[in-house]
Amino acid sequence: MDVKLISFTPDPERTVAAAARMCYSPVGAKRILEDFSDKEVEDFLRKLVAMGHMSPIEHASFTFAISGISRSSSHQLVRHRIASYSQKSQRYIKEEDFDYVIPPFINNNPEAKEIYEKEMDNIRNTYKNLIKLGVHREDARFVLPNACETSLICTFNARSLHNFFKLRCCTRAQWEIRKLADKMLEEVKKVAPILFEKAGPPCISEGICREGAMSCGRIKNH
Amino acid sequence: MDVKLISFTPDPERTVAAAARMCYSPVGAKRILEDFSDKEVEDFLRKLVAMGHMSPIEHASFTFAISGISRSSSHQLVRHRIASYSQKSQRYIKEEDFDYVIPPFINNNPEAKEIYEKEMDNIRNTYKNLIKLGVHREDARFVLPNACETSLICTFNARSLHNFFKLRCCTRAQWEIRKLADKMLEEVKKVAPILFEKAGPPCISEGICREGAMSCGRIKNH
Amino acid sequence: MDVKLISFTPDPERTVAAAARMCYSPVGAKRILEDFSDKEVEDFLRKLVAMGHMSPIEHASFTFAISGISRSSSHQLVRHRIASYSQKSQRYIKEEDFDYVIPPFINNNPEAKEIYEKEMDNIRNTYKNLIKLGVHREDARFVLPNACETSLICTFNARSLHNFFKLRCCTRAQWEIRKLADKMLEEVKKVAPILFEKAGPPCISEGICREGAMSCGRIKNH
Amino acid sequence: MDVKLISFTPDPERTVAAAARMCYSPVGAKRILEDFSDKEVEDFLRKLVAMGHMSPIEHASFTFAISGISRSSSHQLVRHRIASYSQKSQRYIKEEDFDYVIPPFINNNPEAKEIYEKEMDNIRNTYKNLIKLGVHREDARFVLPNACETSLICTFNARSLHNFFKLRCCTRAQWEIRKLADKMLEEVKKVAPILFEKAGPPCISEGICREGAMSCGRIKNH
Repeated sequence: MDVKLISFTPDPERTVAAAARMCYSPVGAKRILEDFSDKEVEDFLRKLVAMGHMSPIEHASFTFAISGISRSSSHQLVRHRIASYSQKSQRYIKEEDFDYVIPPFINNNPEAKEIYEKEMDNIRNTYKNLIKLGVHREDARFVLPNACETSLICTFNARSLHNFFKLRCCTRAQWEIRKLADKMLEEVKKVAPILFEKAGPPCISEGICREGAMSCGRIKNH
Repeated sequence: MDVKLISFTPDPERTVAAAARMCYSPVGAKRILEDFSDKEVEDFLRKLVAMGHMSPIEHASFTFAISGISRSSSHQLVRHRIASYSQKSQRYIKEEDFDYVIPPFINNNPEAKEIYEKEMDNIRNTYKNLIKLGVHREDARFVLPNACETSLICTFNARSLHNFFKLRCCTRAQWEIRKLADKMLEEVKKVAPILFEKAGPPCISEGICREGAMSCGRIKNH
Repeated sequence: MDVKLISFTPDPERTVAAAARMCYSPVGAKRILEDFSDKEVEDFLRKLVAMGHMSPIEHASFTFAISGISRSSSHQLVRHRIASYSQKSQRYIKEEDFDYVIPPFINNNPEAKEIYEKEMDNIRNTYKNLIKLGVHREDARFVLPNACETSLICTFNARSLHNFFKLRCCTRAQWEIRKLADKMLEEVKKVAPILFEKAGPPCISEGICREGAMSCGRIKNH
Repeated sequence: MDVKLISFTPDPERTVAAAARMCYSPVGAKRILEDFSDKEVEDFLRKLVAMGHMSPIEHASFTFAISGISRSSSHQLVRHRIASYSQKSQRYIKEEDFDYVIPPFINNNPEAKEIYEKEMDNIRNTYKNLIKLGVHREDARFVLPNACETSLICTFNARSLHNFFKLRCCTRAQWEIRKLADKMLEEVKKVAPILFEKAGPPCISEGICREGAMSCGRIKNH
């Protein structure tokens, strides 16, 4: 799995703080990014996140290039509707020698790993044979497994990212999308550390767990 | 593939027309659904669609139960973000004897069909063997193919449906989602015939084709 | 202020519960609404809301006709983006004798009320005089006050409503939109009592207050 | 009216083209922005827009600081739901000496202008008098007119902007939001000329007019 932040709103924290300041101060739009010390930017951001007034953080967007995740994961990822996606198409791109993801549990069990890898080889062969028989890619791909690797570019604003991290960084999320979410969080923390300092599962962002009997126990249930 | 309209805004066309009337007439909100003949409802709707003023048609929602489509199709379907989805989970539900979709081209080619069906049997066996080795469903599903059948419930408003039909009823859409879109359109036409009388690909809804060299030629390119 | 629920997804709680059941049970789409006792429906709903798994409740939509609210309120209302609106247009409808909202504080202060009402009369006259001078409605309306009454039809799904109630039923919300939200909540509780039994400000829905020093004190701050 | 593009996705056209390339080419995510000549970027963009495949252009976002527009305009603007807004609050900010917009038609008619300006003075006085009587800002603002100037920061992605320009750059749009849209288009053309070269009303973007009898006649009706 490879996750790279390829683009983002320049100076994202100042942009967000300026937007927040617009709501509450009689400051003109023209000079909204100026006369605003780093300390003030920081204070505004902390206050917003603490009070849960999240709308101004939408002004900062983050674009990721992601590769080496399974189609299972991408199917979960694209369910987050407040985001934009451009994904490698199995209709247009040949998948003769597709790469695939191996779940860690399977990877650690030699017997399971053997039958898993054999199945992947079988599927590759079947795919190739179907292509040879004149089947189009868009139909041959019906044999491709969930494990098949995909690549995509996605853009989220900071508010939608906070929601994504809340759901997907939780230990109850599926391991692969959790790994993806953790890497995405790591990337954005590098460029917007205050904006994302409280991002993560509810036990981190809100000090609460709502998973009931399924809780991992990291903190006491609410 | 099975598509059933299981619920929708009662009297959808009257609801939409009432909303449209609200914008342009000094009529009170209380009696907005009354004093409004069927003929007036019809006229309002036709005018809205003709002028492309689509926002009032959002007030009518349609909920479908869909089963027997492939995971390939559902992956395309859920990319439509202005809609709500509840899909059968491969993390929670056992898929030992999953049903699968056979693309028509493969179904019509005995040789292709044979290797396709054999592959599906192989995958079923591998899935079962992984489960026997203690692999959890959420990991065993990595071997499941795109062909695997899924079920879901989705809700679209009429405006989002119009957009969906525009893109997916086109002959250039992939055959399976096109079949799905055609069935969904058939269902809503039964209960809201005027609202959807011009729904479909741009050649029908707008009298235009933008597919350029890829056009099916049904109408002349714009 | 008049708020009327004019349309909604029939049997909203059963529809939502059926969608939720689709995710976790191997039940076919065709019979998804059947074989499902009222008790089961109720249990499913309570579990969803308790765990905060809100996506299935999006399948139920509610359409309101609202009149007698100020343009101030409608400006706040339409900021809720996951909803559909059709609002009375001041560009197309004459506002010579517009009705207006009087804030309770002003209504209870005879002196303030007098200058307020006099101002409203002035504005009406100015509007009429501008129209007489050939000014179009879309320009004459520039003198109309925030107090001016408006009517609209809006449609929210249950998830977006929960969010709306969380923000706008709070004692810290502005009095008019709070009154509107309270009335909308009252309306939907009549037709979907379980779906909305925990709807309201965070002190009710989550047992938490995040308003810090601004808290009304109904419950202790988190 | 002042419109300033204060932030945007760096290198927006390359970002969009890279996302589009991801869908159709077997290129890795890691090097997606590299090995891509300016000419290739340009060709990709032109093809996307020509074919109406607009989803990749969502990856570029644009943030504007806007001031000196009326509350009438901002009410129309915020109806565009696929965007983010932070607007100057009349609940929190004193409006004793509010600035206001004068519609050109009124400005050019001395008699109309006189009664318009007198009304604005009256309203200012009434606002001040209410404040003196202890009325809170959030209630005193009920007398403020639609003409009252506001400031806001908004962020749109390129796809939502295309839709905004299609509706609001049309000669049938209200004059003020049209002026705003024209200025926003001018701003983004400076930094993403290819992405927006065909942006504008349908007569420009699609070579079509759907306004029927209301058409301005710039091109023949469809």
